[in-house]
Amino acid sequence: LTLRRRNGIPFSVTTQTSSPPLGTVAAATQLATPYICVDRDLLWENLDQLAAYAEQHGLKLRPHAKTHKSRQIAQWQLERGAIGLTVAKPSEAEVFAEICDDLLLAYPIVDAARAERVARLVQRVDMKVAVDSAFAVATLSRAAAAAGSTLGVLVDLDVGLHRTGVQNASAALELAQLVERSPHVELRGLFCYPGHIWEPAAAQESALNAVAEQLEATLDLWKEHGLNAEIVSGGSTPTAYQSHLARHFTEIRPGTYPFNDMNTVLGGYMALDRCAARIVVTVVSDAVPGQVVIDAGSKTLAADRCILGPDLGFGHVVEYPDARITKLSEEHGQVDVSRCAARPAIGERVSVIPNHICPCVNLQDRVWLKVADDQYEPLTVDARGRLT
Amino acid sequence: LTLRRRNGIPFSVTTQTSSPPLGTVAAATQLATPYICVDRDLLWENLDQLAAYAEQHGLKLRPHAKTHKSRQIAQWQLERGAIGLTVAKPSEAEVFAEICDDLLLAYPIVDAARAERVARLVQRVDMKVAVDSAFAVATLSRAAAAAGSTLGVLVDLDVGLHRTGVQNASAALELAQLVERSPHVELRGLFCYPGHIWEPAAAQESALNAVAEQLEATLDLWKEHGLNAEIVSGGSTPTAYQSHLARHFTEIRPGTYPFNDMNTVLGGYMALDRCAARIVVTVVSDAVPGQVVIDAGSKTLAADRCILGPDLGFGHVVEYPDARITKLSEEHGQVDVSRCAARPAIGERVSVIPNHICPCVNLQDRVWLKVADDQYEPLTVDARGRLT
Repeated sequence: LTLRRRNGIPFSVTTQTSSPPLGTVAAATQLATPYICVDRDLLWENLDQLAAYAEQHGLKLRPHAKTHKSRQIAQWQLERGAIGLTVAKPSEAEVFAEICDDLLLAYPIVDAARAERVARLVQRVDMKVAVDSAFAVATLSRAAAAAGSTLGVLVDLDVGLHRTGVQNASAALELAQLVERSPHVELRGLFCYPGHIWEPAAAQESALNAVAEQLEATLDLWKEHGLNAEIVSGGSTPTAYQSHLARHFTEIRPGTYPFNDMNTVLGGYMALDRCAARIVVTVVSDAVPGQVVIDAGSKTLAADRCILGPDLGFGHVVEYPDARITKLSEEHGQVDVSRCAARPAIGERVSVIPNHICPCVNLQDRVWLKVADDQYEPLTVDARGRLT
Repeated sequence: LTLRRRNGIPFSVTTQTSSPPLGTVAAATQLATPYICVDRDLLWENLDQLAAYAEQHGLKLRPHAKTHKSRQIAQWQLERGAIGLTVAKPSEAEVFAEICDDLLLAYPIVDAARAERVARLVQRVDMKVAVDSAFAVATLSRAAAAAGSTLGVLVDLDVGLHRTGVQNASAALELAQLVERSPHVELRGLFCYPGHIWEPAAAQESALNAVAEQLEATLDLWKEHGLNAEIVSGGSTPTAYQSHLARHFTEIRPGTYPFNDMNTVLGGYMALDRCAARIVVTVVSDAVPGQVVIDAGSKTLAADRCILGPDLGFGHVVEYPDARITKLSEEHGQVDVSRCAARPAIGERVSVIPNHICPCVNLQDRVWLKVADDQYEPLTVDARGRLT
């Protein structure tokens, strides 16, 4: 990897070790809207930049595949040095087990059927699961015993998001000791998700220091009791380039960084021109004064509001930055163009950067990869709809 | 159809002319969560009730298929007297053209490729498209000419939602006259969507009277100019049982009524026990005090807020009505259980009625139809993801 610098953040120029062509190449006008267009060069640049950061700080990279749900993009992440992948559900794990032998399921498994599916993957994959309950440990232990395998376990510590995770160091010790005592599960380390840290990157030091202190208290307590954390897994896209400030992470699990979206941009984590995914839409109506309608509603843009910055509507219209997508029905997006000097015409195509790209990708069977000027290749969203 | 009465609303008991079995029958415990469970008896009851209302008032029924996207459910609607179906996109039209020969595309078509797809369907289907621009008329006319077919056209009149639709009677006349002058398109009538009417059913009279007056002004003007509206198409689920108050509708296009959802319930249009679709989920974490986490986030429940009633979170937990789904990540639903006397236990399954069922169904490849006690059959969501 060759390192350059832009805005003080190191990034690299990839050697572009690409995969073979993915199918017929189409021109933009051949593609029916709404479709997601991914700029491959920008995507690679985003992948390279974080790979270089991780390398520089001795952090392993385990991207969350829920964002792209694509084996091809995962492969590009692995080619750039990612040690493995993160997934949310066993059905996602099954998709990515075909191309990756090191998976972390960052989600509680508490039912026998799912635990069995995960335990079966151990034959092919170094499979780890994050847990925050004795119930989950027992479920995994039973399933692994039945499969004759051993499942890796990370103890999930709540460092401030208050979504999942045991609440303090002593609870983490108790759960870790239960793992140690339980057959067919192996304590591999500590897990956290600092998803509550929404400060701009430059202002994250104190929040990440608080995370570091929580991790340290837990790791010290484990050490006192003879327990080792081979893995300390953390990270998010907002904190991606500040992950070293959490001091104890051995690996990070950002999801959105290959694409970026308006949450990333308005949160101040990445420039607008680093958004690699856009939703190309058509203006289908201009009958209501001051407004146009695009052929993308909540079934395309998802209904997510912007949570990491000011609420500017349901996405950014690239060609008409003064436009505001104010209302979504399922297939209609109502766009207030009253503040636009020039207005998009009926029939015109415009592109939208959504607030949150992950649920948008999950609504498509494929995205279209821009591989050259006006040349697009289909890329299957392999794990679309893998919810179980 | 046998009519009975419940809460003053006529409804009928179906003769249950069902289709053949749809595949292997499963017990609930064999189904991985999150899944959508549809109570077939309740679904049929919802279909029968609206069919009876429509029959009673001499209204034709053209359900919007975007809610269920299922050929089987559409067939049940047609068996109960629906004259045809409504769809939003040509790709949906292609799915339903296989079982229905009378389709209305309630969406502007302004690009050549989509117009060609629709024009090709005319060979099999009485195909009608709603338009609100000269641009759309020209696009449809050209495509139908190329296909050697004639497309039916309804003029879309904005009656208050301010989403699409020409703004007044004279604009509607102008567009209708353009249709009359254009080759290969045929004026079939007037179209509106009273989606702005959110009053409880009992308080809709004046709003629907205003719609009636707008329709009347347009129809009178058309008549003066020798134009006839064979079809006057309107209707929504909130106004479904008051549609006769709009006086001029010849047909109605409700979507959500087969299932209902929290928008329908909190808007006061249907009782909670008439929600035929529930999302069955598992409690996967109880680590954070006062909270449990369910395995359904925005990729399952969609991120829609409740728009037709008080904002009570992201869905109703049937077994724990005092619980509140306060936050959604993609795969996590955070449920505040602090006000619950009894709390759901980790590993327990509960069922959620979502705010808006339509985008939830679109996130699944299939739903599970409850056909008897603890017997579920898969029902394919045939038009899932048909966005173009």
